[in-house]
Amino acid sequence: MITNNLITQNLNTILEENLKLAKEINPQEVNVLIHEIKAANRIFVMAAGRSALALKMAAMRFMHLGYTVYVVGEVVTPAILEGDLLLVASGSGTTSTVVSAAEKAKKQKATVIAITADAESKLAEIANHLVLINAATKTDFGTAVSIQYAGSLFEQFTLFLLESVFMTLWQESGLTKEDLWPKHANLE
Amino acid sequence: MITNNLITQNLNTILEENLKLAKEINPQEVNVLIHEIKAANRIFVMAAGRSALALKMAAMRFMHLGYTVYVVGEVVTPAILEGDLLLVASGSGTTSTVVSAAEKAKKQKATVIAITADAESKLAEIANHLVLINAATKTDFGTAVSIQYAGSLFEQFTLFLLESVFMTLWQESGLTKEDLWPKHANLE
Amino acid sequence: MITNNLITQNLNTILEENLKLAKEINPQEVNVLIHEIKAANRIFVMAAGRSALALKMAAMRFMHLGYTVYVVGEVVTPAILEGDLLLVASGSGTTSTVVSAAEKAKKQKATVIAITADAESKLAEIANHLVLINAATKTDFGTAVSIQYAGSLFEQFTLFLLESVFMTLWQESGLTKEDLWPKHANLE
Amino acid sequence: MITNNLITQNLNTILEENLKLAKEINPQEVNVLIHEIKAANRIFVMAAGRSALALKMAAMRFMHLGYTVYVVGEVVTPAILEGDLLLVASGSGTTSTVVSAAEKAKKQKATVIAITADAESKLAEIANHLVLINAATKTDFGTAVSIQYAGSLFEQFTLFLLESVFMTLWQESGLTKEDLWPKHANLE
Repeated sequence: MITNNLITQNLNTILEENLKLAKEINPQEVNVLIHEIKAANRIFVMAAGRSALALKMAAMRFMHLGYTVYVVGEVVTPAILEGDLLLVASGSGTTSTVVSAAEKAKKQKATVIAITADAESKLAEIANHLVLINAATKTDFGTAVSIQYAGSLFEQFTLFLLESVFMTLWQESGLTKEDLWPKHANLE
Repeated sequence: MITNNLITQNLNTILEENLKLAKEINPQEVNVLIHEIKAANRIFVMAAGRSALALKMAAMRFMHLGYTVYVVGEVVTPAILEGDLLLVASGSGTTSTVVSAAEKAKKQKATVIAITADAESKLAEIANHLVLINAATKTDFGTAVSIQYAGSLFEQFTLFLLESVFMTLWQESGLTKEDLWPKHANLE
Repeated sequence: MITNNLITQNLNTILEENLKLAKEINPQEVNVLIHEIKAANRIFVMAAGRSALALKMAAMRFMHLGYTVYVVGEVVTPAILEGDLLLVASGSGTTSTVVSAAEKAKKQKATVIAITADAESKLAEIANHLVLINAATKTDFGTAVSIQYAGSLFEQFTLFLLESVFMTLWQESGLTKEDLWPKHANLE
Repeated sequence: MITNNLITQNLNTILEENLKLAKEINPQEVNVLIHEIKAANRIFVMAAGRSALALKMAAMRFMHLGYTVYVVGEVVTPAILEGDLLLVASGSGTTSTVVSAAEKAKKQKATVIAITADAESKLAEIANHLVLINAATKTDFGTAVSIQYAGSLFEQFTLFLLESVFMTLWQESGLTKEDLWPKHANLE
């Protein structure tokens, strides 16, 4: 049987690693993201693996706020056009499907914002704007930044960051919880 | 090694079973479906298992034609409202998640159309309109209607039927292939 | 109001186009596919758009027969290894994500089988085996082979072909409908 | 333009709400979850909405550790059987599809563990074991526990909790990052 201490300790480690990243974030970069979300005709999100799941959690909340949001790869997602925003996340900035989507979006004159841990990556080069997260990337096997597995810290913090983006958009909107509730899916 | 004849024979059997169903369809019911698709503010589709995949194939095409379409259960699907259409498919008409969604949609005063093989089912009772397919249902282990496995024939014909609905809507629209092409997802 | 004749006529057109393709299929190619499905440790399926949905319909049936099947891109899909089969479908044989996956699978020494309409495509070159379908591809705007929209006929026939593959595997297995039923998802 | 302070403040609020929950967790309940994950033949996960996305993030990691994991509702998910574990998450403990799945799993004699914020809920009654999270639930419009929107805190903390479960399982396994890497999906 595992000691209860180990579980508590791991929970603390994970939260403290995220707290440390929160102190290193550049709020100005997040501000630009918020500005572009509000300015966009429609918001498209795309990532691979667990980063995609974090983006989907955010996408659902943006929909609750009244934005038109699409997840790239889902059945009813239309073509991206000029005036739309593509929000991508890739710790390494090298995920090939994500880099390829960013390139295609740029060709359509859509705005691309990348959440990434590598400001020198291919993805960072393509994107119009970056939100840098100082987390270890998936194939970085060191423990300097995080003792967690692979890209876990990047993926967790991507979620947290977008939760704070949602919270900020919500506060600005002046809408109440009761105002948003009717947008929630009601057939499940 | 399987005889080549067996493969050819099975392919023919499957297509002939679908041809037989095509002769038994009531075009008036399909006409109502087409009318409601055109009249709806937004189209929601829902089913379980392979029927859900057939509906998703149709949903993608309806999106290409310019309709606003949502798959129930996907991340960015909003609440259904009065003026929307819920299109469901269930061979038996008893799939609990589908029946439950149909009931909830009716409470919102959305229109519900059910593609089903059982006109006496719970789902048939709830729906505003039916499109009846005379196929064996998933738990009907007889071979009178189909020698295929479980609901296979129902699922195949649901796809075919909706392909002909799309084709009819497309012909009516007067749009060319080139007109529709720009709607296709362009980031994959 | 649309004439009922138009609906009936479109349904017949679609089924006849599929019947025509059935006559042109090379059963020997399908035989190889069946052989490789039975020989594989695990089966991975991948495609884009509506072809992906057709493959998923087949994947579910292969699972019912007792095969270990994964859809590339789903959350719990593991790495492909030597001894596994990657089954892909692309009308044009040029879909970039599919071509890229086929290349990666080949590097892992997995077997790749491609269902395609173009025997000269990049995908056809990479694959160990082909199943050729003589259908118009998505960007082929002619009407010589099909008057349907874009890749519709290819996508429909991919489904049909795999339904006959399933039916053949099932007949060979000697299992009854009742034997397969307990494999069906039982939590929905 | 939003003040940068607001973004920083929201990020801190979110992390502090999660830290507070971490102090209130009962490690013994998490210990039981870890024990059951290790004891199970196969692990099935299920939830609705954003809780489902949090569970999927965990499911992917459990797969990387070598467990056989399925997401209920995905195409290749087989029937649950005795000896399997169903892990569900519902803040309110009343989500109808989740309650229904838990009941069906119990009938199959599978073990059910529920992550929930309500120990008195229908789901809590059905489950073999609970992991209680002291977070506001989706329809609890007060601000005593969280000033975030709806079930956001519950969903975030479900992810965190399962990240610490993964980290603990990983530490116990003695496997290195390099050992786990080959399990990662390699076709994207």
